[in-house]
Amino acid sequence: MMSRWHDPSLSAGERARALLAEMTLEEKIAQLGSAWPGNDDVSGNVAPMQDVFARGAVPFEQARAHGIGHLTRIFGTAPVTAAEGVARVRGLQREIVEETRLGVPAIVHEECLTGFTTLGATVYPAALAWAATFDPDLVERMATAIAEDMRAVGVHQGLSPVLDVVRDYRWGRVEETLGEDPYLVSMLGTAYVRGLEKTGVIATLKHFAGYSASRAARNHAPVSIGPRELRDVVLPPFELAVRDGGARSVMNAYVDLDGVPAAANTALLTGILREEWGFDGVVVSDYWAIPFLKSMHRIADGVGEAGALALAAGIDVELPDTLCYGKELTELVRGGDLPEELVDRAALRLLRQKAELGLLDAGWAPSAEPIDLDSPRNRALAGEIAEKSVVLLANDGTLPLSTTRIAVIGPCADDPLAFMGCYSYPNHVLPRHPGFGIGVAAPSLVDALREEFPSALLAVHKGCSIRDEDRSGFAEAVAAAEAADVCVAVVGDRAGLFGLGTSGEGCDAEDLGLPGVQDELLEALLASATPVVIVVVSGRPYALGRHAHRAAALVQAFMPGEEGGGALAGVLSGRIAPSGRLPVQIPRVAGVAPSTYLTPPLGRNSEGISNLDPTPLFPFGHGLSYTTFEYSGLELSADEIPTDGQLSVSVTVRNTGERAAEETVQLYLHDVQAQVTRPVLELAGFARVPLAAGAAARVRFTLHADRTSFTGLDLRRIVEPGRIEVFAGHSAADLPCTAEFRLTGPVRAVGHDRVMTTPVEIAPA
Amino acid sequence: MMSRWHDPSLSAGERARALLAEMTLEEKIAQLGSAWPGNDDVSGNVAPMQDVFARGAVPFEQARAHGIGHLTRIFGTAPVTAAEGVARVRGLQREIVEETRLGVPAIVHEECLTGFTTLGATVYPAALAWAATFDPDLVERMATAIAEDMRAVGVHQGLSPVLDVVRDYRWGRVEETLGEDPYLVSMLGTAYVRGLEKTGVIATLKHFAGYSASRAARNHAPVSIGPRELRDVVLPPFELAVRDGGARSVMNAYVDLDGVPAAANTALLTGILREEWGFDGVVVSDYWAIPFLKSMHRIADGVGEAGALALAAGIDVELPDTLCYGKELTELVRGGDLPEELVDRAALRLLRQKAELGLLDAGWAPSAEPIDLDSPRNRALAGEIAEKSVVLLANDGTLPLSTTRIAVIGPCADDPLAFMGCYSYPNHVLPRHPGFGIGVAAPSLVDALREEFPSALLAVHKGCSIRDEDRSGFAEAVAAAEAADVCVAVVGDRAGLFGLGTSGEGCDAEDLGLPGVQDELLEALLASATPVVIVVVSGRPYALGRHAHRAAALVQAFMPGEEGGGALAGVLSGRIAPSGRLPVQIPRVAGVAPSTYLTPPLGRNSEGISNLDPTPLFPFGHGLSYTTFEYSGLELSADEIPTDGQLSVSVTVRNTGERAAEETVQLYLHDVQAQVTRPVLELAGFARVPLAAGAAARVRFTLHADRTSFTGLDLRRIVEPGRIEVFAGHSAADLPCTAEFRLTGPVRAVGHDRVMTTPVEIAPA
Repeated sequence: MMSRWHDPSLSAGERARALLAEMTLEEKIAQLGSAWPGNDDVSGNVAPMQDVFARGAVPFEQARAHGIGHLTRIFGTAPVTAAEGVARVRGLQREIVEETRLGVPAIVHEECLTGFTTLGATVYPAALAWAATFDPDLVERMATAIAEDMRAVGVHQGLSPVLDVVRDYRWGRVEETLGEDPYLVSMLGTAYVRGLEKTGVIATLKHFAGYSASRAARNHAPVSIGPRELRDVVLPPFELAVRDGGARSVMNAYVDLDGVPAAANTALLTGILREEWGFDGVVVSDYWAIPFLKSMHRIADGVGEAGALALAAGIDVELPDTLCYGKELTELVRGGDLPEELVDRAALRLLRQKAELGLLDAGWAPSAEPIDLDSPRNRALAGEIAEKSVVLLANDGTLPLSTTRIAVIGPCADDPLAFMGCYSYPNHVLPRHPGFGIGVAAPSLVDALREEFPSALLAVHKGCSIRDEDRSGFAEAVAAAEAADVCVAVVGDRAGLFGLGTSGEGCDAEDLGLPGVQDELLEALLASATPVVIVVVSGRPYALGRHAHRAAALVQAFMPGEEGGGALAGVLSGRIAPSGRLPVQIPRVAGVAPSTYLTPPLGRNSEGISNLDPTPLFPFGHGLSYTTFEYSGLELSADEIPTDGQLSVSVTVRNTGERAAEETVQLYLHDVQAQVTRPVLELAGFARVPLAAGAAARVRFTLHADRTSFTGLDLRRIVEPGRIEVFAGHSAADLPCTAEFRLTGPVRAVGHDRVMTTPVEIAPA
Repeated sequence: MMSRWHDPSLSAGERARALLAEMTLEEKIAQLGSAWPGNDDVSGNVAPMQDVFARGAVPFEQARAHGIGHLTRIFGTAPVTAAEGVARVRGLQREIVEETRLGVPAIVHEECLTGFTTLGATVYPAALAWAATFDPDLVERMATAIAEDMRAVGVHQGLSPVLDVVRDYRWGRVEETLGEDPYLVSMLGTAYVRGLEKTGVIATLKHFAGYSASRAARNHAPVSIGPRELRDVVLPPFELAVRDGGARSVMNAYVDLDGVPAAANTALLTGILREEWGFDGVVVSDYWAIPFLKSMHRIADGVGEAGALALAAGIDVELPDTLCYGKELTELVRGGDLPEELVDRAALRLLRQKAELGLLDAGWAPSAEPIDLDSPRNRALAGEIAEKSVVLLANDGTLPLSTTRIAVIGPCADDPLAFMGCYSYPNHVLPRHPGFGIGVAAPSLVDALREEFPSALLAVHKGCSIRDEDRSGFAEAVAAAEAADVCVAVVGDRAGLFGLGTSGEGCDAEDLGLPGVQDELLEALLASATPVVIVVVSGRPYALGRHAHRAAALVQAFMPGEEGGGALAGVLSGRIAPSGRLPVQIPRVAGVAPSTYLTPPLGRNSEGISNLDPTPLFPFGHGLSYTTFEYSGLELSADEIPTDGQLSVSVTVRNTGERAAEETVQLYLHDVQAQVTRPVLELAGFARVPLAAGAAARVRFTLHADRTSFTGLDLRRIVEPGRIEVFAGHSAADLPCTAEFRLTGPVRAVGHDRVMTTPVEIAPA
């Protein structure tokens, strides 16, 4: 029988309403839940999370009795091949369609932070590496490739991107972010969303909001934050990704903000997100965030109350399985303690999405087919991002390498897992799983160097492990370095979950010294007479101040993915002109956290007022090449504009060296005086500019007055008249061109329709 | 001629209004300013602060031309004897009275954090040591002694106490605070205020508010905080000190809160302080905080605008000299850009205070006389506080010492300056001043040990300095330890200003490892076969986790002042039964800051959710004695009370050891479930109980429901119905007695009249 909600000529909203009208209360509430069949296989990975509440997941047959909203990580849980995963999705969807009264299939969601998170799929670089490319188009192309693969195998929604703005480098999830500048995060995050959404796959913005500001960078710890910092630093990337990216899903943050857990924060999930920004998609809970309202935050006395609080605040669907949005919620509605309208509101949002995805079409059947998840296209994209993300921090001329005897030392030298972000573990399968090794094949840096320097003699020594205290390998490593012409020391992180690694979710750092005894290994190597090139492959920036002055060169890679070896080797050999830029600062000392570049004057070292100096070793935006660039001719199209006007900012950049390369031109603003404290500098625009040797380009930014807006004393967003300093150049600490203009007229209130981006045009000069 | 404002039969307010009516605009504004004659002598101390703005102080003759509000630190600047200081105050006041039209003398203010801050005056223990006594009566007696001395020499106002609640141990000013618990800070801070005010000396609450939460604990750095944390953690000590302590002055914090500098924060300085709490005293600026609105915060375009912002927000008097409350302010009023009512408002507040102080009496002349500023009474009080503040952290039985060969090792062993807080430098005079050594005479720990153990052989070695990297003294020190029966290792801080020390204003810590190579010295000593007693003499808690398991005993003193040597030696010898308690936790590891005990569940280590564990080595409230105590018989007078009710909580404590001692009984609460996240534990009451060997006492706390109040979702302070768990015992981590009660009835809003204290009665049992 064909129901009205099957009718594809009606709008998605109409179909959703028609379906809702046919549903019992149990069926409506079931749509707000989810199931994670197969999760028992990897319970070890998430045990710390499961321990916090008493009840486990119910058998699938019971979970889907009245239908189900989402199916959780069918691919990303136990190691399955593409064919096995497709078969499982087909089987589960068929069961839902055939064995439930209404036969509404589930939305299938998966993780996709470093690519589709399943066995054998391409492991792209970590998000922090995308950020280092400063290349939104490239990020968008990657996202589209990821989404096409997911869509082909029957996945509807990806739980990415992470739009948390980095506030403390010690946080384990820094590798998952797009760095410490809200504008960079906004532009790259929105590009990712666009890439996903244009294939029909739903993007999920996370973590809404404030997660990255947890106290002392400890995962889930409380967040001390006020409304102004929240609105000016934390929220803009979400706002742009909703408005310009068209993101259709948002996931809450685990943390509490000034005492109010995000999962129960009506002002955030409904007030700001929907009423101010007009978001009309689906808010999903982060995994177990709803029962955490009881067990961790202790603002609810049971799973029913936790569910009611989350639903009322604006969480539509509970993930990863149904613990709070189940029978207790039904009882609360039946007992008159929870308005059924709240259930309907959430269910309508989800059902409309199912209609958009075609899941309400009559005769729907899964169209998934197994495909090559590590296709040449994917690997080429992964390689391009890796190449563009490697940051050359310092170089005394030792790079590119031109030598035949190379000592390659360090725990990250001969291990491709050093290149893989935390969320990619199902792709290559964690070592303790029996299937280890059957995932992606990726060269280590040593493998890649052998290919890059076929006639070189490589002496390879680990020296130490990533985080053990064992120094017994130092002597052999130092001897190898002394016997070589150059030493490449490869240090950094191993990504993992919940303390299994040194970077990744739950792997927070006590301080910003390199893990284990790696700093001591570097000291031992640097004491030798051999020039040492330090290569850091990490998920967060580490303090390198104690080594930098003695190193011949410093290279930073942020978990560059399965093609990371070749990219790094290519930079070392000179085959690739390095062009990555720092999306986070590299600190000088291990303490003094938190400190990011985005700060009013007193967040910097203030003329002796504190003995601590948070000045970084390398600034935000920094990155060298094998050529040089010169900036000149900064021109503004106007000396003053009204508070609703715009002007153009033009600057010429010239490649003054001898080889072609790409330079990332950066535009910064400083509001000289305002009614509240304002950053010393903030990024307002950027452009990657390819330049042949000797060539020059004129880069023109179209800067709107709205880009100077901030949250004023009365908590409204305003553009204030006054002087604005403009800087253009190479990094936040290398800005040779400066000018200023004046905003005139009255203070102007701006809202959700404000101009949030700075278009840029590049022309030969 | 006798004016109406000279008439002592009128109220202070009437006299102030009468005087104001006679004043020109210049004279009114002059009352809002201050002068610091003689400041040139020590400009080196404050150079980093002075460099931030271009203009210096004007000559005194010019500064006082129209009168002057305050005279700044006549005693506390250049080293002066009491007689010299009195003569200077007399001379300056006489000049003001005789050479100005109206002849209104100035309020003379001085620092008095560790005692009256002037050459040769008693150096009491640092505030963190008072906090370790958990003894409000003793703190009040000390404050009275300090104030009596100040009053005798012509001082009217003391710039103490510091009521900042510690949020990050790395902050240099931790030594100036009363620890990390708002209730402890409230009780001790209010006791101090009462002690000062009852002599007629004006107490100054500082720093209002939020200073201790500066980012990464860097002095003056921005504060990320929301309104709930501000109201529940930061503000209560100020509120109680205003309401119950009768404090007549408040000083702003340097920092900005969520972008709004406290010095220009109308909501804080006028809304909360005056309108909510009813404060009717004078708000003074922290030194240079008003020009900082221009130079550091950049919310003003000049000193005039900075002054106007501060005045409008509620700062009445500019300290330490007049930079912003001068001619520019006059011009703004004359130009119609600043309402004269704002000037009148501030001037009236100050003039009323002058009337109260007798400064408006006809024929006023300074009554100051030189006195002994280091009297036996003072030294006895300083000694009593020192003795009660030493915290015995751990002891394997090595203490009390019973030995004849003692190696006393470490940079704090033979230096009485190790006992002196940051603000006491004028008392003993900084080493680089020519007068060094002419201040107070105080025994070092070595001096005191020689007296305590007259027949012992002491081998004294520094081992290393406080913060240099020189390890050349290690070998000699270790050899001395090996040759002794016991080694007393004395490590810690040297207080100083702006980076001159390792603790104190501007001396913030990168992490919580001991400064310099002192951790390495301890490791070297602990590797010997000799038992090592570690004595930490510091301004902040340091991470001792790497040493604790190998130490024979651990003793913590928080800059115990000029009598600190005897107090420490007495504890080591057993002459004194140790009774100090930790007002801050002792961390286990050097990283993982900030973290204090006052946190909701997710601020603790959350079952593996983060690999970082902030659990301290020694908890808040901890401290051993040479006897043992047992707790029993916790009883509540009711199982449930209404949300406006009260109950009594009784517990028996028994001295189960063989010598008399004092035990600090502690009462903690936990709100099991609330509408916002609430602390796992918070201190709700405490009592020092002296107990002879074998004796027992019944301690009865009268707990009002208001003591469970918190800032609810709508930012009102409420008492919420529900379960409250009650714990009594020895420290935040040793609470053998537990019970619970229920609050019943409606949610109740409470205001400034709420019950903020927990009275306690002690009876023999």
